[in-house]
Amino acid sequence: MSSERLIYLPLGGAGEIGMNAYVYGYGAPDKERLILVDLGVTFPDMDGTPGVDLILPDMTWLKERADRLEAVFITHAHEDHVGAIAHFYRELGAPVYARAFTANIARRKMEEHGHPEDAVLTALPWPETIEAGPLSVGFLPMSHSIPESAALIIDSPAGRVIHSGDFKLDPTPVVGEPFEPAVWQEISKGGVKALICDSTNVFSPNPGRSEIEVGPEIEKLISAATGMVIATTFASNVARVKTLAEAGQRAGRSVVLLGRAMRRMIEAAVETGVLAGFPPVVSPEEATEMPRDNLLLLVTGSQGERRAASAQLARGKYRGIEVKEGDLFLFSSKTIPGNERGVIRIMNQFSEKGVDVVDDSSGRYHVSGHANRPDLEQLHGIVRPQMVIPMHGEHRHLREHAKLAADAGMQSIVAVNGMMIDLTGNAPSVADYIETGRTYLDGSVKIGALDGVVRDRIRMALNGHVVVTVILDEDDEPLGEAWCEIKGLPETGTSRASLVEVLEEDLTQFLMRAGAKTRRDDDKLEGELRRIARQSAMSEIGKKPEVSVIISRMA
Amino acid sequence: MSSERLIYLPLGGAGEIGMNAYVYGYGAPDKERLILVDLGVTFPDMDGTPGVDLILPDMTWLKERADRLEAVFITHAHEDHVGAIAHFYRELGAPVYARAFTANIARRKMEEHGHPEDAVLTALPWPETIEAGPLSVGFLPMSHSIPESAALIIDSPAGRVIHSGDFKLDPTPVVGEPFEPAVWQEISKGGVKALICDSTNVFSPNPGRSEIEVGPEIEKLISAATGMVIATTFASNVARVKTLAEAGQRAGRSVVLLGRAMRRMIEAAVETGVLAGFPPVVSPEEATEMPRDNLLLLVTGSQGERRAASAQLARGKYRGIEVKEGDLFLFSSKTIPGNERGVIRIMNQFSEKGVDVVDDSSGRYHVSGHANRPDLEQLHGIVRPQMVIPMHGEHRHLREHAKLAADAGMQSIVAVNGMMIDLTGNAPSVADYIETGRTYLDGSVKIGALDGVVRDRIRMALNGHVVVTVILDEDDEPLGEAWCEIKGLPETGTSRASLVEVLEEDLTQFLMRAGAKTRRDDDKLEGELRRIARQSAMSEIGKKPEVSVIISRMA
Repeated sequence: MSSERLIYLPLGGAGEIGMNAYVYGYGAPDKERLILVDLGVTFPDMDGTPGVDLILPDMTWLKERADRLEAVFITHAHEDHVGAIAHFYRELGAPVYARAFTANIARRKMEEHGHPEDAVLTALPWPETIEAGPLSVGFLPMSHSIPESAALIIDSPAGRVIHSGDFKLDPTPVVGEPFEPAVWQEISKGGVKALICDSTNVFSPNPGRSEIEVGPEIEKLISAATGMVIATTFASNVARVKTLAEAGQRAGRSVVLLGRAMRRMIEAAVETGVLAGFPPVVSPEEATEMPRDNLLLLVTGSQGERRAASAQLARGKYRGIEVKEGDLFLFSSKTIPGNERGVIRIMNQFSEKGVDVVDDSSGRYHVSGHANRPDLEQLHGIVRPQMVIPMHGEHRHLREHAKLAADAGMQSIVAVNGMMIDLTGNAPSVADYIETGRTYLDGSVKIGALDGVVRDRIRMALNGHVVVTVILDEDDEPLGEAWCEIKGLPETGTSRASLVEVLEEDLTQFLMRAGAKTRRDDDKLEGELRRIARQSAMSEIGKKPEVSVIISRMA
Repeated sequence: MSSERLIYLPLGGAGEIGMNAYVYGYGAPDKERLILVDLGVTFPDMDGTPGVDLILPDMTWLKERADRLEAVFITHAHEDHVGAIAHFYRELGAPVYARAFTANIARRKMEEHGHPEDAVLTALPWPETIEAGPLSVGFLPMSHSIPESAALIIDSPAGRVIHSGDFKLDPTPVVGEPFEPAVWQEISKGGVKALICDSTNVFSPNPGRSEIEVGPEIEKLISAATGMVIATTFASNVARVKTLAEAGQRAGRSVVLLGRAMRRMIEAAVETGVLAGFPPVVSPEEATEMPRDNLLLLVTGSQGERRAASAQLARGKYRGIEVKEGDLFLFSSKTIPGNERGVIRIMNQFSEKGVDVVDDSSGRYHVSGHANRPDLEQLHGIVRPQMVIPMHGEHRHLREHAKLAADAGMQSIVAVNGMMIDLTGNAPSVADYIETGRTYLDGSVKIGALDGVVRDRIRMALNGHVVVTVILDEDDEPLGEAWCEIKGLPETGTSRASLVEVLEEDLTQFLMRAGAKTRRDDDKLEGELRRIARQSAMSEIGKKPEVSVIISRMA
C-alpha cells in the first residue's frame, strides 16, 4: 500500500441540502495537499435560527490547514455553492477558480467585501485543466438550472475522481451547455476511481424533463392572459427567465425585471455572453405608463421571501406597480421544503386582491434542475466508477443513493459532513472524523451554532423574559424591594393582578426572609431569585419564563 | 321583504384552514336567535406564534350575545372542529350537541376542564332533528377521515341550509358511514337555499379516492417487511388505523398502540361502537419481549410533532422500544403545509438509524379526507342550492370554490371570517363586518393575538434583548455606572471587546453628560438610553437589539 492517500472530506452539503463545501486531498496522511470544491451558504429560518442572517459552514478545520490548501473551485453560481466565498476569502487565502459566469457572480461578492478583483480567476472548460499541487482539475460543462454549471474532473496519482456538481441530464437546456453522453464516455474510458454525486432527486422515480418542455406551456398561459402577468422563478435560472421573457415578447408584452437579484443575474449572463437575444426590458417607471395587459413582470421571491419583489407586490405596491383584479401570477418554480408557509401567504394575499395564482402543481410550468433516480442510474452506467459517494443531499438522500449504487455493483458509503473518506483502496473507508458544524452570520458577527446565543433567543421566544433587579447595601441588606421587568409575557394571570406585581411581591418576600449567607453569595442569591420568579410565574400564568437576575451591590 | 333574516357568520375557518367556528342565526336584525357550528383550534408555529400552546378563535362577538345562543353543534371530532369547546364552554353557556363518537371525544375535553358530563348531549342522526329556537338542526352522516362525521341540515323559516362539514364522497370508507347520493337527493328535493361547503381540496383536479383503496397497498408493504414495522397516521383516522392493524395482523404481527391520542381514539371508537373487530393489541412492555419482525407499532406524530411517539422513536427510544437497521417506518398520511421541516427531520433521523422510510409521495399509502374539485361539482349538482358559500379554506380556496359554483350557475360569495352574510334573499349579501381575530392560549392565560406579547417574543428572537439598569440618587445624579445584561446576543463584536462593556461604557458616558432635565424625566432618559444602546450595538455587532431600560431612583 502506498504511503500517500487520496481523501474526500465534506465540510458542508453532505447530510443536508445547502452550504456545500467539499475537500479533496492527496499526499501523506495529514500532509495531503488540499483543494476545496464549493463554498456555499444555507438560509436561516425562524424555527431553528431566528435573527440569523446567513448560515455558513464551519471552516475551522480548513483554516487551520490553510497552508496546505492549493485552490478553491466553484462548480456553479448558486448561493449554496458560492455564497460563502467572500466570508472566508482572507482566512483561506487560496486562489478561487470558476467558469466565466460563475466568476462574474463570485467577483461581485468579493467586491462587496472589499476583496481584490483578481481574487477570482476565470477557468476555461475541459479539456483545459488547472494544476493544484498533486491534483489536476478540469471544469466539465454540465446541464443544471443555471448557466455554466460544471462537473469537476479531479486527477490524482491515485486515479481520477469526478465531482458531479449539481446536474441534470438535459439535452436541450435552452441556455448553457447540454449533457453530452459521448464526452462523459470519453472521460470515463480510462477508469474512474470515484464519482462524488448529486443526490437531491434520488427519490424522484421518473426520468427528469428538459428545460425546453416548459416553453410551450408557459407561452400558452401567458398568451391567454388578459391582465398584467407577473412571473417568478429563481433569478439564477437564466434559461427560465429567458423562456418567460420570450413568451411575454411573443404575446406583445414588455418585460420588466423586478428585484435586485433578477437584474444582476441577467446582467451577469449578458456580460459573460451566456445569454444573447434577451428581449428588451422597460423600467418600472416606464411600466406604470403602459397598459397592464402589455406587461410581463419577472420578479424575485419564488420562495416567499418577505422582502422580495413578489411579497411586496402581494402586500401592495413595488416600485410604483400595483396588482389588480384579473392579473395573473405564475410560480415557475418549486417551493423548497420548509418555505411553504411564506409561499402560501403570498398566494392568499394575491387571492385577496383578485389575482389568479398558478403554481407548478400541474407540473407544466417548472422542471427540476437535478437528476432524478433513472438519470443517476444512467450516469452511473456511463461512468462505471469503482465507487459512488453520494453528496448534496440529506441523510435519507445519501443513504438511498448509496443503496442504488451498491445494488448496481459499485462500492459506496454514506459519508456525511466531517467524515474523511480514504478513496485510495478498492473501496471507500473512513479515515477520520472531523468536528464540523455551522457558523452563523449574525449582523456583522460570526457566531458558532453551539455558542448558545441563538438557543437563548429561541428560549425567550418560547418562554418570554423576566429581568429581576435587586440592590443590596454595604451590609448585604436589601435596599428597597425587588423589581421585575417582563417582556413577551402577559400583563396579568390567573389572579387578575399584575404579573409584575405578583412577581415583585414574591421576590421581595423572599429577599426579606433570606439569610445573610444567601444574601452575601451572588450565585446562590441569583439561583434562588430565578427559582422563585419561575415558580411564581408558573402559578400565575402557567409557564416558566427565562429569568435574568441583576444584583447590584452598593458596596 | 320579511323583517326577519337568515344569517351566516364565520368566526373562524373561512380564510384559513383551522379553528372552525360558524354562526347561523334567524330573526329580526340584531335579535337573531343563534347557533354555533364547530368550535375548533389551530396550532401555533415558531414563525408567527412562538411559545403559544393553542390558537383559539376570538369569541368576543358571540360571548356578548350568549343570551341569544341556542346551542352549539359539532360536526366531527377533529381538533380544528372540537378542540376549543371546553375553553369557551362556561362563557357561551349553551348546550353542545354531537353524534356519539364526537360526543365521547368532546366529553373527555370537558372533563379535563372540570365541566360537567352532561355538557355534551348525544345527537342521533338525520332524520332526527334538534330544535334550536327558530332553527331545526339534523346531523346527516357523511364520509370523512374520522368516524361519524356529519353534514348539518339547518332548517329555518327562510329555507333550508346545508352545512357540509368536512367531507369526501366515499362509497367505501372502511369505518363509518358512506356517502349516499340518494339521501342527498332526497334532502335536496324541496330546494336548498344555501350549501355552506368545505373547500380544502378545490385545487385537486382528480376525483377523490376511497379509503378502501389503500388497504391492499398497505398490506403488500407490511407483508414484505422483514424488521419491525412502525406506521403513523392521524390517530383520529380510525379507518386507517384499522386498515394498518389488520394488515399487521394478517402478516402475523402483534399490534402496539403508541401515543396517548392513538390509544384514546381507538378507545373512543370501541366504546361508541363505531369500531368493531379491532385486532388485539399488546403493551409496549410485552412488545419488548417479542421478536421485532412480529411487531407493528401504530404511533402518533404524523406531522413531525417533537413530543409525539414517532419523533421520540426517531431520536432514540419510546417506552423501552428502539428502532434498528432494517426496520420500516410508514407515513400513512400527508404532511400538512408548514409541517415539512419537522417531518423531514424525523425522516433523516430514521435514515441515520438505518430505518427505511416510506411516505405518501407515491400516492399508494394515503388518501385525502376531503372532496376534490370534481367531487365538489358532484355535490353541487346533487344539491343544486340557490347559493354555495365556500368555507373551510384559505382565501385562495374560497375564491376558487366560489368561481367553480358561479361558473355552474349558482350564486356565490367569498365570505371570510367576520363577514356576516344575509342568506334571506335570492343572492348572498354582506350584512355586516364583525371584528374577529385569534386568541392565544399561552400557558394558562388567554391573550389576544394583537396584545403585543407574542410580537415582543418574536422581536427578542430576531434581535436579542439588552436590559439597561441605572440608579439615580435623590438629586437625580447617577449612582455608579450603567449596567447591561444581554441575552441572545454575541459576547463580543467588531472591536473584540466585550459587548456588555462597550455598551456600559457608552451608556455611562451619556449618563454622566446628560443634563439635569433629561435625568429627571423617566421617559426621556429611557428613550435616550435605548437609542444609545441600539446605536452602540449596531456599530459593534451590526444589529439593533430590543432594549429594556430600568431606572431606579433612590429617592
